[in-house]
Amino acid sequence: MIIVMQKQAGEAAVARVVDFIRSRGLQEHISRGEERTIIGAVGDERVFSPNDLENLPEVERVVRVLNDWKIISRESRAEDSVIQVRGVAFGGSGMLDIAADEARAASADAVFLDPFYLSVRPYAEVDTSSEKGQILQMRAQVARLHEAGKPVLVRIRDVRQIEAALDAEADILYLGGELMSNRALQDEVGRLNTPVVLCKDKHHRADDWLVAAEHIALRGNRHIILGEAGTLSFEPEHTYRLDVDAIVRVRRVTHLPVIANITRLWHNDMPQEVLYRLAQASGVNGVVSSLP
Amino acid sequence: MIIVMQKQAGEAAVARVVDFIRSRGLQEHISRGEERTIIGAVGDERVFSPNDLENLPEVERVVRVLNDWKIISRESRAEDSVIQVRGVAFGGSGMLDIAADEARAASADAVFLDPFYLSVRPYAEVDTSSEKGQILQMRAQVARLHEAGKPVLVRIRDVRQIEAALDAEADILYLGGELMSNRALQDEVGRLNTPVVLCKDKHHRADDWLVAAEHIALRGNRHIILGEAGTLSFEPEHTYRLDVDAIVRVRRVTHLPVIANITRLWHNDMPQEVLYRLAQASGVNGVVSSLP
Amino acid sequence: MIIVMQKQAGEAAVARVVDFIRSRGLQEHISRGEERTIIGAVGDERVFSPNDLENLPEVERVVRVLNDWKIISRESRAEDSVIQVRGVAFGGSGMLDIAADEARAASADAVFLDPFYLSVRPYAEVDTSSEKGQILQMRAQVARLHEAGKPVLVRIRDVRQIEAALDAEADILYLGGELMSNRALQDEVGRLNTPVVLCKDKHHRADDWLVAAEHIALRGNRHIILGEAGTLSFEPEHTYRLDVDAIVRVRRVTHLPVIANITRLWHNDMPQEVLYRLAQASGVNGVVSSLP
Amino acid sequence: MIIVMQKQAGEAAVARVVDFIRSRGLQEHISRGEERTIIGAVGDERVFSPNDLENLPEVERVVRVLNDWKIISRESRAEDSVIQVRGVAFGGSGMLDIAADEARAASADAVFLDPFYLSVRPYAEVDTSSEKGQILQMRAQVARLHEAGKPVLVRIRDVRQIEAALDAEADILYLGGELMSNRALQDEVGRLNTPVVLCKDKHHRADDWLVAAEHIALRGNRHIILGEAGTLSFEPEHTYRLDVDAIVRVRRVTHLPVIANITRLWHNDMPQEVLYRLAQASGVNGVVSSLP
Repeated sequence: MIIVMQKQAGEAAVARVVDFIRSRGLQEHISRGEERTIIGAVGDERVFSPNDLENLPEVERVVRVLNDWKIISRESRAEDSVIQVRGVAFGGSGMLDIAADEARAASADAVFLDPFYLSVRPYAEVDTSSEKGQILQMRAQVARLHEAGKPVLVRIRDVRQIEAALDAEADILYLGGELMSNRALQDEVGRLNTPVVLCKDKHHRADDWLVAAEHIALRGNRHIILGEAGTLSFEPEHTYRLDVDAIVRVRRVTHLPVIANITRLWHNDMPQEVLYRLAQASGVNGVVSSLP
Repeated sequence: MIIVMQKQAGEAAVARVVDFIRSRGLQEHISRGEERTIIGAVGDERVFSPNDLENLPEVERVVRVLNDWKIISRESRAEDSVIQVRGVAFGGSGMLDIAADEARAASADAVFLDPFYLSVRPYAEVDTSSEKGQILQMRAQVARLHEAGKPVLVRIRDVRQIEAALDAEADILYLGGELMSNRALQDEVGRLNTPVVLCKDKHHRADDWLVAAEHIALRGNRHIILGEAGTLSFEPEHTYRLDVDAIVRVRRVTHLPVIANITRLWHNDMPQEVLYRLAQASGVNGVVSSLP
Repeated sequence: MIIVMQKQAGEAAVARVVDFIRSRGLQEHISRGEERTIIGAVGDERVFSPNDLENLPEVERVVRVLNDWKIISRESRAEDSVIQVRGVAFGGSGMLDIAADEARAASADAVFLDPFYLSVRPYAEVDTSSEKGQILQMRAQVARLHEAGKPVLVRIRDVRQIEAALDAEADILYLGGELMSNRALQDEVGRLNTPVVLCKDKHHRADDWLVAAEHIALRGNRHIILGEAGTLSFEPEHTYRLDVDAIVRVRRVTHLPVIANITRLWHNDMPQEVLYRLAQASGVNGVVSSLP
Repeated sequence: MIIVMQKQAGEAAVARVVDFIRSRGLQEHISRGEERTIIGAVGDERVFSPNDLENLPEVERVVRVLNDWKIISRESRAEDSVIQVRGVAFGGSGMLDIAADEARAASADAVFLDPFYLSVRPYAEVDTSSEKGQILQMRAQVARLHEAGKPVLVRIRDVRQIEAALDAEADILYLGGELMSNRALQDEVGRLNTPVVLCKDKHHRADDWLVAAEHIALRGNRHIILGEAGTLSFEPEHTYRLDVDAIVRVRRVTHLPVIANITRLWHNDMPQEVLYRLAQASGVNGVVSSLP
């Protein structure tokens, strides 16, 4: 970590920063320039947060040198990791076609199910099916798809649904962006051996995504696929857009497979076919779509 | 709802839209201009979504006339709703000082607790306390604060924590932005009688917030407080900022109380005192802060 | 235009809206629903702005039906317009390779020059060349490129440079995004017969772009090419990104050619080759790049 | 400047960076950690751009230590600079009321004129006044306001209008955000002695603003006032919002006065009175408004 002191920072302020650095088991490395004193903290800077230092007196700015992820980075493993599921390879150079609909299973490489979906519109016709009914239906779908030899991704929306999905023999657990902040759930998923898709939410930067993936990997589960399903747009009529920039970035810095889910991103001004081409151009390993 | 047809739209396309409108129990109202045919759908448009129509052939654009919220709007109730908790009034013209720290309880109107917090940094020193330990500590804190006559807001981060918070006699359940997409949890909270703070997440527009609040209100719980705790910023070094614009908007269109949580939004370039003043200028009914 | 009145709006407020509509030569069309009165303004709504109406009492919202562009829309002309410059076709199904550097002219379809560039960094080594020197150099470059049979795009950064560029026989004037708000300059360009590239700026929505293009077309110049050179990004280390969504949208609603300028959008996490593929996938008619 | 090398970076890559640093007159300062080699470039880093280094092989990231502004920073001058115009002080602790309308001049501290405004809507009723007419009207207005003892801010929209404004005896030149990229115009303004308001555009970060202000100060003109007139919003119906965060930041890092222009930022969900209070809470030295 590099600490840039304010121009007028005095010796006492520098000493406080040095004390802090040593107290965390790192070593300082001071360089006094004409306009600024700069302090390097050498060692594993991952054990504390820049904010801890930024709040010390006369500190101007704190810059991290190491990333908060390690296991999932290309520095740990240069080649793409490939996750084999029922004979289908997620990762590497292939590009999987994942159907968002059982009906199109025959021509797809894998199928995505969203059994626990609830409408976000309060006055929508309420789905009268109970969670029990949802679970029974999911079990039947997974069984049919397995018979047809297709791997199945099951989206869970709550920590209580993990068990039901595993009981139904889901091949891959799909965590939507809203679960990116749920470290307790990620702890549980991290202790499983089942592959997991980790989607970032609409406001996350690529780094938030990688940090959450590292969190899961650190708990033991290395079968992680990154999922991109939309980020904020400025266009007033279309709230979300595919984050091609984040896909390109994470493909470069991690060895994990990346898929795009475009089922809720198309609209009159952005046909699903074009989204598919854009995802492909950004280098994804698979696309979840409702294209026929 | 108003449906604007494409310029060249033919009679068949208009007829399909009309059929759809009637099938949902609404009535059409057609107006043929020189450049466009426009179809009004008269009746309760809340039962279907603009997308259902936008996907019909030769439809250019669909505009909603009614909002997806009703109970919580000022049209249902013009005056501010006020929620009384242990003698403290949330809402109306007062401005509550809510401490984010038990230590400052004595001078505050209420206290905010976050017992289930987990670090988002994978390599942070892991908190070794078990959830059981967290719960015991929360109980003790709530008891002490109640003895001092202070209402307590407890942040839950998972549906499984609702019961523990209620058992500990939390006065108000605080739902962080990450729970905005969890309709199942909102269903449970909606069936309670305990006041609830509903925060929007970093990417939500004001309307998403109001729709979720209506969802809870529709389940029966009318003790809803809106909470704002940060939205996306463009400044590279500071990820989030206080969404003063959204606060102003919701104070105008709903009668619900609104509080701001500024504890994680201050930094070197934005002192907490200034955030406090900005929140106040935007019209909030209370601020959660760690100001002394 | 459609005017949605507030729920409690009275007859007087409706009458004021009607008066306004008639005063501008349009006709009203009133529809009273259970929850809202809606007023349609039939006729050419392009003569006034929604704000004029939104500020009238008891108006809730104003929705435009017609767009502010007409000449450049696919409704006026369904097929792509193609602009021929020295035998090179801008528009249609081709994809032009435009070099941002004279050195690579031989293999390119056209060449982009930026003779009036000034560093935005105050302490950069100052370019000592005078504007006169810049102009002489530009003339020589254009002459050499014409000899080689290549069309030349010249970026102007100020209204005073139009004449110099035309004198140098620039084939296409390139207006950067910072000129999108300069209607006076657009008036001049609109009265020329020289093809023009109109770039949107980093904060513009697609509609702002189309409105400015219509402004030029309305003055008489129909040789307009839309240019996309970057929009705001959320990633802290990379300020701008290619706006693929806007490209897709404008390719659908206008018949104008669209090019992307990726020379300032690549960085460590986004190689220029990938940007090129993304631009292609979004349907552009040409790319300005510094690829070898 | 601090250069973080990639993990696997070899000696050759380090040597190339060192060569580059020396070639620009700075000195290197190498620190080899376990996971990264870090190179400090000691000296005036303002003479080159991080990109120059980022493009060298095996460089991961380049971090600036010094800012690109100096003259305008509080490090050069701790106390607020105050610009006196006709007896009215811009800057310091006062808060000026600037009328956007001559009609309200009597009760205001200063008056803002926008004589060269052109509608951005192509089909708006065209203003038939010539530029000559605009100039004559401006002269008359400025004269009347001077008689009443009021300082006048004149917005210019093009470099050709500087002279006309000065001839009319405008006290302060107001540069809208669209002129932030026009370094040629800023050069001219920088050589004047007339006070200038420099607005950032809707997509600029606070640093872009400060860099442009330094550019003007470096040319000699130190009478600079920063102006904030709107930044991008995510709310679909309201394109722009007041950037209170940027105001707070620049008030801390520069000694320049800052004013907010709220005349085009208010709407049904954001009354001008509330904007005024927000601007005040953020610490501005003046507000341009159309409040009565």
